[in-house]
Amino acid sequence: MNPRLADISISLIREIAAKRKPSSIDLGLGEPSLTPNPAHLQAGMDYAAAHGLRYTLNAGEPQLREAIAKHYAYPHLDSPANVCITTGSQEATYAVIKTVLDPATDELLVVEPAFPSYAKMAALEGVRALSVEMAEEEDFAFDPERILRAVTPATRMIVICSPCNPTARVMHRDSTIALSDALLRRGGEPVWVLHDEVYREQTFTGDAGYFGQHYPYTIVTNSVSKSNALTGLRLGWAMAPREIAPSLVKVHAWLTSCADTFAQHVALHIFSTGAVAEHARWYAQRREEVVAILEQSGLRYIAPEGSFYACVRLPEGVDSLRASHALADQHDVIAIPGVAFGESFRSWLRLTWVCEAKSLREGLQRIANYSLSALRGETE
Amino acid sequence: MNPRLADISISLIREIAAKRKPSSIDLGLGEPSLTPNPAHLQAGMDYAAAHGLRYTLNAGEPQLREAIAKHYAYPHLDSPANVCITTGSQEATYAVIKTVLDPATDELLVVEPAFPSYAKMAALEGVRALSVEMAEEEDFAFDPERILRAVTPATRMIVICSPCNPTARVMHRDSTIALSDALLRRGGEPVWVLHDEVYREQTFTGDAGYFGQHYPYTIVTNSVSKSNALTGLRLGWAMAPREIAPSLVKVHAWLTSCADTFAQHVALHIFSTGAVAEHARWYAQRREEVVAILEQSGLRYIAPEGSFYACVRLPEGVDSLRASHALADQHDVIAIPGVAFGESFRSWLRLTWVCEAKSLREGLQRIANYSLSALRGETE
Repeated sequence: MNPRLADISISLIREIAAKRKPSSIDLGLGEPSLTPNPAHLQAGMDYAAAHGLRYTLNAGEPQLREAIAKHYAYPHLDSPANVCITTGSQEATYAVIKTVLDPATDELLVVEPAFPSYAKMAALEGVRALSVEMAEEEDFAFDPERILRAVTPATRMIVICSPCNPTARVMHRDSTIALSDALLRRGGEPVWVLHDEVYREQTFTGDAGYFGQHYPYTIVTNSVSKSNALTGLRLGWAMAPREIAPSLVKVHAWLTSCADTFAQHVALHIFSTGAVAEHARWYAQRREEVVAILEQSGLRYIAPEGSFYACVRLPEGVDSLRASHALADQHDVIAIPGVAFGESFRSWLRLTWVCEAKSLREGLQRIANYSLSALRGETE
Repeated sequence: MNPRLADISISLIREIAAKRKPSSIDLGLGEPSLTPNPAHLQAGMDYAAAHGLRYTLNAGEPQLREAIAKHYAYPHLDSPANVCITTGSQEATYAVIKTVLDPATDELLVVEPAFPSYAKMAALEGVRALSVEMAEEEDFAFDPERILRAVTPATRMIVICSPCNPTARVMHRDSTIALSDALLRRGGEPVWVLHDEVYREQTFTGDAGYFGQHYPYTIVTNSVSKSNALTGLRLGWAMAPREIAPSLVKVHAWLTSCADTFAQHVALHIFSTGAVAEHARWYAQRREEVVAILEQSGLRYIAPEGSFYACVRLPEGVDSLRASHALADQHDVIAIPGVAFGESFRSWLRLTWVCEAKSLREGLQRIANYSLSALRGETE
């Protein structure tokens, strides 16, 4: 067996999410509760009826690659040749790490709290991953100075998920420019920024930063999973500059050959009908309601700037993993333990707020009650 | 950049296939010309309409895993826990290689001629891949003695594609048992057999062997791509014994999270309606016609026992890569050069025979003419 696997655990998020019962208040797994627009799926069916479902080019359907490149129009990523269509943004991220980093010499810097997959993928590849923790006292705001100080001579890639899973913070335009400029000033071998934009259509601040607009060494990953409630479709992409894209396509080709042709035509319909943001207003409206509910809960929370998460803090000394298990087992609430996203988030819970307002309110009430018991030493 | 990529080329098969013009006689890329049964796709749509398209468990939908385990009923692989649903058999194969082999110590033995992906995947993983060539004088029949002689103390996995891409040979039952028994007699650390069964429903001999029936250290990969004309759906699976399956699921989870939910429900419809072999008769009938056409061509050929390929030999000294380019550029025939499948196949062409009989006949005529010119030294 490959000895690298021994140290890599199955997803803690999935482990907790699997405790869900039909009765549970589910604030766990990260996916929309909206249903996808059937017109997009029908477009995939229509394509299949007319053409069957054959392999596409490894990099994906040319029209889809073009539509994506044009939609985002990032200066160094605006040609179809910059786009590789993948099996969700997960395969995109994996292929990027595998393509760009040399396990013998290169380090990946993960901005934490972070979705655990980046570090796990690096471990699978034998790539050294270091993390830089954003500050709890600043509600984990993205801090370009902190990130920059953590860059070593071996750092070849920084991975930033903004809007952020789990913190729901967004890297602002000025911070994005500041980090980009500082990285450019360093000179020498470029440090790549992998900007995971999978929550881009759940952005609730007007000054979100996009590395693709400012920094030539940006690689972007994204998908239709969160934007269009199509997590199960597994259709994503990576956008990479010309010096990277052909190698990325090569890795992708040997991993999965090509993305699902049906899914590609669903995505093509989304882009060609301008429907990427079709759910954005719903999230923005829900977000207002969610902030009011968080405020009423009495818990410390981070006001969401993006994504569909909200994070609440447990009392000092209460471990989030223990809390998540207790909440699932005794209070029938599924909430993801912050420790899944890094040590700095050990006292936090990540809550998905795509459920009914009533459920969120009740779930927060149960978390508040649990917190109170924990403070009183009544939990075991 | 990852230095491993430098030595890994893009698919030669894809490179030649890309020369196809609308006018071309296309005997190139390996996919069915049949169209998929719309009822299966409709089942995927019906599921999506009722449930949306959310993530499934990493290993896939339990009912699909169960249906697959039961359908094949291999003694050590007959529980849902043995099945991991993947993005086509390509991801399945990749995950198996990554899971089972330790790059520091383990070797992969590829039975050649072979589809190039096994060696490329091993190279991507830093795993040493050796090959054992079947004998041209025996029309590349699977020879257990030859395979066994090539096993070294470091060999931890043997990959066998039967029915074979490219040779169209099938490993017979007695050969399968002979190799299984000999591997078991060796003792010591087990040598895994990865049986790529992707052409299982294109088997034209009554005595095909299945390692899953005889050898406890078998891992099987397969998909609905070839059986049901769904190459573009990217829905496959790996079946592995209990000591391997959980690790395999873990690797798969970090690579792609889970397979496409739509595709999984298409596959579930295929299995639950007993439609896995729905195209098998068509292939068997076509195969009879193809053998007659091959016979008439005057070329040396290998009578297909399985898959939808037929291989023809070029005259002595004619390089298949040069021939493929010349055939594409000057004779408008797309045929895959044997060298893509290993040195032992350098003088052969792989032809896909899913096209109209007329096209195959004309294509073979052009290949025969080209061969004649080559013999006369008229090609440059």
